Formats: sequence, C-alpha cells, structure tokens
Amino acid sequence: MQDTHISLAHGNGGRYMRELIDEIFARHFAKLDDQADAVPLSLNGGEVLFTTDGFTVQPLEFPGGNIGSLAVHGTTNDLAVAGAIPRYLSLNAFIEEGMEIAQLERIIISLAKAAKEIGVDVVAGDTKVLRRGEGGGLYLATTGVGIRDTNLNLGLDQIRDGDVILVSGSVGDHGISVMLAREQFGLRGSLHSDSASVLPFTQALTGLDGLRFMRDPTRGGLATVCHEIMRATNMGIRLQQPDIPVSEPVQSVCDMLGYDPLFLACEGRVVAIIEPAQAEQALAQWQALPDGGNATIIGQVVAELSQLVLVTEFGGERILDELEDEPLPRIC
Amino acid sequence: MQDTHISLAHGNGGRYMRELIDEIFARHFAKLDDQADAVPLSLNGGEVLFTTDGFTVQPLEFPGGNIGSLAVHGTTNDLAVAGAIPRYLSLNAFIEEGMEIAQLERIIISLAKAAKEIGVDVVAGDTKVLRRGEGGGLYLATTGVGIRDTNLNLGLDQIRDGDVILVSGSVGDHGISVMLAREQFGLRGSLHSDSASVLPFTQALTGLDGLRFMRDPTRGGLATVCHEIMRATNMGIRLQQPDIPVSEPVQSVCDMLGYDPLFLACEGRVVAIIEPAQAEQALAQWQALPDGGNATIIGQVVAELSQLVLVTEFGGERILDELEDEPLPRIC
Repeated sequence: MQDTHISLAHGNGGRYMRELIDEIFARHFAKLDDQADAVPLSLNGGEVLFTTDGFTVQPLEFPGGNIGSLAVHGTTNDLAVAGAIPRYLSLNAFIEEGMEIAQLERIIISLAKAAKEIGVDVVAGDTKVLRRGEGGGLYLATTGVGIRDTNLNLGLDQIRDGDVILVSGSVGDHGISVMLAREQFGLRGSLHSDSASVLPFTQALTGLDGLRFMRDPTRGGLATVCHEIMRATNMGIRLQQPDIPVSEPVQSVCDMLGYDPLFLACEGRVVAIIEPAQAEQALAQWQALPDGGNATIIGQVVAELSQLVLVTEFGGERILDELEDEPLPRIC
Repeated sequence: MQDTHISLAHGNGGRYMRELIDEIFARHFAKLDDQADAVPLSLNGGEVLFTTDGFTVQPLEFPGGNIGSLAVHGTTNDLAVAGAIPRYLSLNAFIEEGMEIAQLERIIISLAKAAKEIGVDVVAGDTKVLRRGEGGGLYLATTGVGIRDTNLNLGLDQIRDGDVILVSGSVGDHGISVMLAREQFGLRGSLHSDSASVLPFTQALTGLDGLRFMRDPTRGGLATVCHEIMRATNMGIRLQQPDIPVSEPVQSVCDMLGYDPLFLACEGRVVAIIEPAQAEQALAQWQALPDGGNATIIGQVVAELSQLVLVTEFGGERILDELEDEPLPRIC
C-alpha cells in the first residue's frame, strides 16, 4: 500500500478497499476470512454467549492502551463477567478520511495482540470510510461470542441480602488517564489506563458456589454498577469508602479537578457479588493473581437500605445518587 | 423521554443513556436484554455462521428504506447468501449529538420491523453519542449469527468452468435511489431502493445439488462480485449485457449522469453460481417467488477467459475492469 493517509476511495468496494483490508487488517488476523460473506464458528461444550460494544475514545492512543486494545478488552470483558470464555470477535472500523495509515496500523496491531493474549479470534470484519470531519479519526465496534459452562448460574436475580461486594483493583485509572491524555495538564506522571482482560479474575471465581454476579465498571464507574444492582434487586448498598482502592495519583487528580473516582470508567476491573461465607476465599483467589494485589472487599448489599450509602473514613455517611451526565465523555 | 434531540449526556452511562436505551431501543426489541453483559444464544441444528457490517448511508432515509432497515438487510443477507438462516443480531449505534430523537426512533422502528419480518432477534446492543459535527447523524453496525445445514457446501472454491450465473432481480436500484435522494435532481419518480431480505431467494436454491456459490452485490455492484469470483477461481466471466435486468428509470439516470449500473450497489439482490444442468430449475424457482419476476440467467464462468467480458446487444465485447473508486460513496 503506497498511500500514507486514508481517502474515501478506501471505503468504496474496489481495489483500494481490498488492499486496505488485506494489508492493514487481514494480515494481522490469522483467522479472518475476508473472502467469505459469513464464517462458521466452532462452539462445542457449553452455552453460547453474545455481546457487543462500540468505541469512540478520544484520543485514539493513551497511556496504557489505544482504541484497538480497548475494543478487544471492552467486549471480551463483557463475556468474561458473564462467566464465559471469549472465543470469537467481529470488528467494524469506521475510519475518517485523512487518518494516517501508520496510526491505523499501530491500532490494529495492538488490537490483534490483545486478542491473541486472550485467545479470541477476530473472524469477521467490515470497514467504512467517513468523510473528513465526520469521523473523529476512528470508531470501532466489536461483537463477541463466548462459551459458558451450562452449570453456571450468575445474574442480578441471584443477588441476596447481605451478599458481599468485591472489586478486583483500583478504580478510575482508565477515566483519569484518558482525560489527562486528552488535555494538556502536564500531570501524566505514572498514570496509565487499567485497560486489560479481566478473564483471569472472572475465571478465578466461577468455581465458587456462592458467586452471584460479576460486572465490569466501565462508563459511569463503580457507583453506576451499584445503582444497576440496586435497581434490579430493590435493595440498597453500603460501601466502605476507605476500603475502595484508588491509586494515589488518581486521587490527587480527582481532588484537584473535582471528580469522584467512583464515577469514573475502568476498563480492566471486575465488581463481584458473592455470598458472605465465600467472600474471603474469593478475595484470596483474586489477590493471588499477578494483577490482584489491590483486590478488596468494599461493601455489602443491604435489603433495608434503598440508597447507595458510602461510609466515610470517620464513620459519616454520604449518599451517592445516580449519575446523570458523566464528567468525562468519550472515555470508551 | 422529554428531550427532542440527542445530547452528549445520552451517551455517558447515566440516567439519560438508560432512558434513551429503554425508550428508543429496548422498547422495540422484545428479545433485547439491556441489563445483561452478554446474552445466551440458542443454536441447535446446524453450523453456526457469523458476519458483520457497518452502515454510513447518506441520507439516513431514502425511498424504499432507511439506515435501520438497511442494517438488518445488509447483515442478514450476508448470512443468507452463505446458505444460513439468520437467527440473532447485535446492534451498535453511533449517534451524533443534535440528532432529532423522532428521526432516530423512526429508524429504529424500521429496523425492528425488518428484523421481525426475517425472524431474526436483536439480542445485544450498544449506543455511543458522538460530538456534533463528528457523526454524520447516525452510523450503525450489526453483527449476525445464523444456522446453516451442515450438508450445504457453498464457496468460491466450488465454482467450475462453465457454471451459470444468475441474478435475482434488476441491478443498481439502491445506488441510484440513494444518490437521487441525496442530490436535488428532481428526478426521483418511481425509483426506490431494492433494500430487502434475500432469504426467500437463497432458501429457494439451497436444496439444489448443483448450487456452488451465492453473493449479494452490494458495494461495487454486480461487476465487483464477478471480479471477486475471478480472483478466487483464476477463471474469467462472460456476461450477456441484454440479459442483465436494469430498470428503465435506473438506466435513464445512468445514461444521463454517466454511471454504469453494473458497478452500483444493490441491497436486495443475489448473484448465484450453479452448474449448467440445474440453471433452468434455479431460475424457475426464483421466478416463482413474489419478487422474482426479473430474475435471469446473465452469463457463465469461462476458464479460457481471464477477464470480465460483457457481450453487448450487437455482439461486441467490452472488458469491465475492477473498480478503483466507486462513483457513489456512502451508499450503505
């Protein structure tokens, strides 16, 4: 491919588009059949799960990841928290005219690497080129297919009064890192996104009988996951603020700019709900993982409450209402 | 929902987004579980097929369809031409800030109706809101899962010298209709897009032993499908121009504006390759369908040729090269 930037001709069904797909996409995806209208999936051994996600993060590249790795983590994490093992992905790329092809390829290489690490194959794809000014550089959409053990019974409807809430690591890193990458605060320091596969964390717990439900706290953060649980169960939640892991630099930036890390997106964390008798076992299994050092028990589901209550360091209580408008748009 | 236009808050993980999803999306999709991270699929009885497509058509609404119905037809047609019966869809919507919510809902209703007619369930979805000026109104991506009879053996590698080429109806209607809807030519008349499910056409042929391959001629049109066949088989193709169905108004517009209908997108047609002995039977089965009146045999695969040769009305021959840049961008 001789061009250095995307043109509308790369989206129009002819030779340019074929070369773009061959050289920038198919080359990095061993299992992609770009000649087929539809590809067969091999899906033995369990229940088939299906999920999809769109990605519009700005900037396209940020400390700790880019829109490509994020598009793999975001969708495979939705399969993972449902208890499944991700197997296949489809990929849609909406590419803005004028995008630098070298940047596009960096992103696709990163996407392919993330998929390979998780063991998921990108088997179907499509590209469209958007007119200059109408595309924000690049938007991606990924749809995932995974396999789940048919004996696993997870869901919001499994949650009971007194169940314990765990989080697998510090919250808000993705949100703050992308925000700092976007703005010119000169504050980046050691901050980087937590964008990663949560599969090791979810698979560590699926063998525990008392596991009720898992979710990755993305848009809207940990507090929004709590509100989703509360809406579905008609129970309240009490969180112990001092137990919620927030990294020192994330907390500093939040204090400085007035953000609450509990509402900021993570892209590599899991919130798990588990019966009390199994909570310590679950925590031990998470803490034994290479990236599990910051996993903690952060609170409980409480039937007699109707709100999300945060117990502060000094024993006071703060009510966290549902988010209406996230402070940081275009975070994923 | 009280708002009349999309705002960035509709994309940010909070209450506004939840209301948008509940009221404009989930309400129209009975099988969509917008509380789940991933949904189970029931997939007994055959091979599982998987495909994806992105949609950026401008304008969003055009005579004969809109981006919503097109997003269903485009993706389910890819399953259909592979010989599968579409079963499930995921839907990604990238919505531009400022989009009129009434228009969004018209499009989603049309999408839901198209899905229902085909018998495919939209079971997973995601929405993102794009900043004003960065979204072209609305982009969609759909990923489809279907089931195919395991005995069916279709593919470019099945095509043999002398195989016969059929098309299920007139070509170029979609391309010309969208183009006229975009520009102010005052020429629309009776023209409308052919956007439709091709499932009745594909299922009519899957019982025929000699069926080799089917494809829907979308971006790049009929001529591009022929070039794809030629690249994969290393054989040439001879088409009889007078036998290729082109509607009178499409031909008139093409003559006037200098387009070739063989390179224009269809969104509801099938090209089928079949062994010669079965070609008349296949044609009869297509012509017996409600929308099959214009189905015809248009040519043959010819091993001794290396090009796409069009035999004209007067016996002359014209070579059709591969498209480099489609005359009509943003057609699907």
